[in-house]
Amino acid sequence: MGFGGIRTARELAGKGFDVTLVDRNNYHLFQPLLYQVATAGLEQESIAYPVRAMARGWAGTRFHLAEVTGIDFDAREVRTNNGTIPYDYLVVGAGSVTNYFGLESVERHAFDLKELVDGERLRNHVLTAFERAVVEPDPAKRRALMTFVIVGGGPTGVEFAGALIELVRFVLAKDYPELSVQTARVVLVEAFDRLLAAMEPPLQVYTLEKLRSMGVEVLLNARVVDAGPERVVLHDGAVIPAHTLFWSAGVKAAPLAAALGAAPRPGGRIPVEPDLTLPGHPEVLVIGDMAYLEQDGAPLPMVAPVAMQMGIYAGSSILARERGGSLPPFRYRDKGSMATIGRSAAVASAFGMKFRGYAAWVIWLLLHLYYLIGFRNRIVVMLNWIWYYWFHERQVRLITERERAGGQ
Amino acid sequence: MGFGGIRTARELAGKGFDVTLVDRNNYHLFQPLLYQVATAGLEQESIAYPVRAMARGWAGTRFHLAEVTGIDFDAREVRTNNGTIPYDYLVVGAGSVTNYFGLESVERHAFDLKELVDGERLRNHVLTAFERAVVEPDPAKRRALMTFVIVGGGPTGVEFAGALIELVRFVLAKDYPELSVQTARVVLVEAFDRLLAAMEPPLQVYTLEKLRSMGVEVLLNARVVDAGPERVVLHDGAVIPAHTLFWSAGVKAAPLAAALGAAPRPGGRIPVEPDLTLPGHPEVLVIGDMAYLEQDGAPLPMVAPVAMQMGIYAGSSILARERGGSLPPFRYRDKGSMATIGRSAAVASAFGMKFRGYAAWVIWLLLHLYYLIGFRNRIVVMLNWIWYYWFHERQVRLITERERAGGQ
Repeated sequence: MGFGGIRTARELAGKGFDVTLVDRNNYHLFQPLLYQVATAGLEQESIAYPVRAMARGWAGTRFHLAEVTGIDFDAREVRTNNGTIPYDYLVVGAGSVTNYFGLESVERHAFDLKELVDGERLRNHVLTAFERAVVEPDPAKRRALMTFVIVGGGPTGVEFAGALIELVRFVLAKDYPELSVQTARVVLVEAFDRLLAAMEPPLQVYTLEKLRSMGVEVLLNARVVDAGPERVVLHDGAVIPAHTLFWSAGVKAAPLAAALGAAPRPGGRIPVEPDLTLPGHPEVLVIGDMAYLEQDGAPLPMVAPVAMQMGIYAGSSILARERGGSLPPFRYRDKGSMATIGRSAAVASAFGMKFRGYAAWVIWLLLHLYYLIGFRNRIVVMLNWIWYYWFHERQVRLITERERAGGQ
Repeated sequence: MGFGGIRTARELAGKGFDVTLVDRNNYHLFQPLLYQVATAGLEQESIAYPVRAMARGWAGTRFHLAEVTGIDFDAREVRTNNGTIPYDYLVVGAGSVTNYFGLESVERHAFDLKELVDGERLRNHVLTAFERAVVEPDPAKRRALMTFVIVGGGPTGVEFAGALIELVRFVLAKDYPELSVQTARVVLVEAFDRLLAAMEPPLQVYTLEKLRSMGVEVLLNARVVDAGPERVVLHDGAVIPAHTLFWSAGVKAAPLAAALGAAPRPGGRIPVEPDLTLPGHPEVLVIGDMAYLEQDGAPLPMVAPVAMQMGIYAGSSILARERGGSLPPFRYRDKGSMATIGRSAAVASAFGMKFRGYAAWVIWLLLHLYYLIGFRNRIVVMLNWIWYYWFHERQVRLITERERAGGQ
């Protein structure tokens, strides 16, 4: 369940409806912290929360573990790999997947962070790269094993770059005394001329300077056009020998969007009416990253706060309609955005103000703890953060799935 | 790294030796708590600790991530899938694997708990069984999905059976209001006429009565002889329709034992001299489950305390020999054994005394926290236990890897 769906369900719970939640995972994933799983800072279990644990307190709500394979609008049924579910109202919020913009070689070799398993997979890959570097006699190959290229200067790219260079310089440097860990490279590639395009210019400048001072090589106005297992090729033909490529340069609507039968916008998003219904199907609402809706002349961004507000609106809207009324059109209230860069360093625009450095970092911490679901999860995450802050230590440095460690 | 190897390394650290630790995993796994990962009580990261984090403080020690493929005694080299490592002394303690005693159908269908990934895999299987039961219309199939057969009445079987029935009755009963969870069956099958054969009779009787009062069906003098995906067959031809079979009825030395070139004892263990050296190879020491050594007329058991004491002895012995001396023969000091049955219920024989119930349970908790490596791990584990004790809640109810949820 995503950010939108769980809020729709919460709105409808205990109001006399039969609500069925359908998801192919039995948990809600708090995606914004997935990069901390990938950088050995958090265990994956602390950023996921079982749907059934939430639904326990929601009267009239049940959960159905299944992958949706199609929608029959005439019969008003959702088809899944695990049975068919009839509906009176249908709320679709299947989120987004990574958009490689047709770059097949990049898609084949790059890592991304969308699903829970992606965090663990990327952590295993990063740590295995260092284990392989230890036994690699060729200095050029060793350097490539310790080179990490991150594409996309949005919040995910910035946060992952900062967390990764801190992992390397503060933690792995102590783990691998036999390596010159300071020669490891973290390269952040951004197509635009600035990082965090959605933020105010002073925060963009702060982010760029902070990342560079931490040792991240930031390449602006640069694009990745090709990739192999041990190299990344830029638009100008420059080749970066690198064993790891991380892609956060774009998302597109989840494939389920195609089942909605509407002509999609770029990115596969489905245009919706101002009340979030699917044109011609007032009983179907589309929320979150899948929905395309313009506000004040620009499409709403594909971010969690939009999904959350749409989810609440969808629930209230159904409730209002069943009571014979209706809601005014959906309107997104932008409460600001933020990104953490490193220890005691973040940028945030919130409450109409700009924050950076320590203050922004504290706001970031508190808001992420607040939005994380599950009291135990909050405590475990806080504990990990305190640990890292005090001891400069990240304990989840486990290679839990074996890549071929030898590599020869 | 197992219980033995890390203690050998700790003994030798900072004494002027070059110590190389070789393991195919980059962590030490605290196997005794793996059953709590399988029953959604602990996250896997909290019972594993990175070898490099330990080795940081051990002067002269390095880590080599590799799978050992052979030993060349003449050249004094260990061959791995990732290079060759020369040695002056070699300490081998590769532990044990599950022994299915040639029962191929059982090996194919049963789960065990030896590796870190086994805990998560079994948890996913158990939770998926309940998700499938929810949508299963056939009552007989639904019952089989909710039937769990556990083979082996030793500590692992007893602890898993107790933790599983508590998961089902206290936690999953709330998660699955649509199921009659109380009809779920946990069947413990033991070939002998009593549980926990190594314990004193009063503790065996307490364990049997406690498990039965919790709802576990205990079958004594019974053996599993065949298994299929949805059934388990006993020695008398009785068939238990069951979707899950867990096997903890035996272990045997890890396959690496064959590389030691000695005639193995039953269970594949390698006979060693009283100083733990391999006969004919005084520079090679064998420790832990792989080593076969008799004491007072009986072979030492394949348990963690033996491995730990052998590991310390191996380190001290090498140290003594390098200083021109020698140690008296290895002698295992049995400090007792214990098993937890459920909430506030355990059995322990320690310090020459017998404990059961709440007192034994507190001793069990404290000793497991003490032997767990890593301060953060201890806190996270304690937090999970407090949570469970207070709220009757286990939060790691995540299906992290998708089995075919449909099953049709």
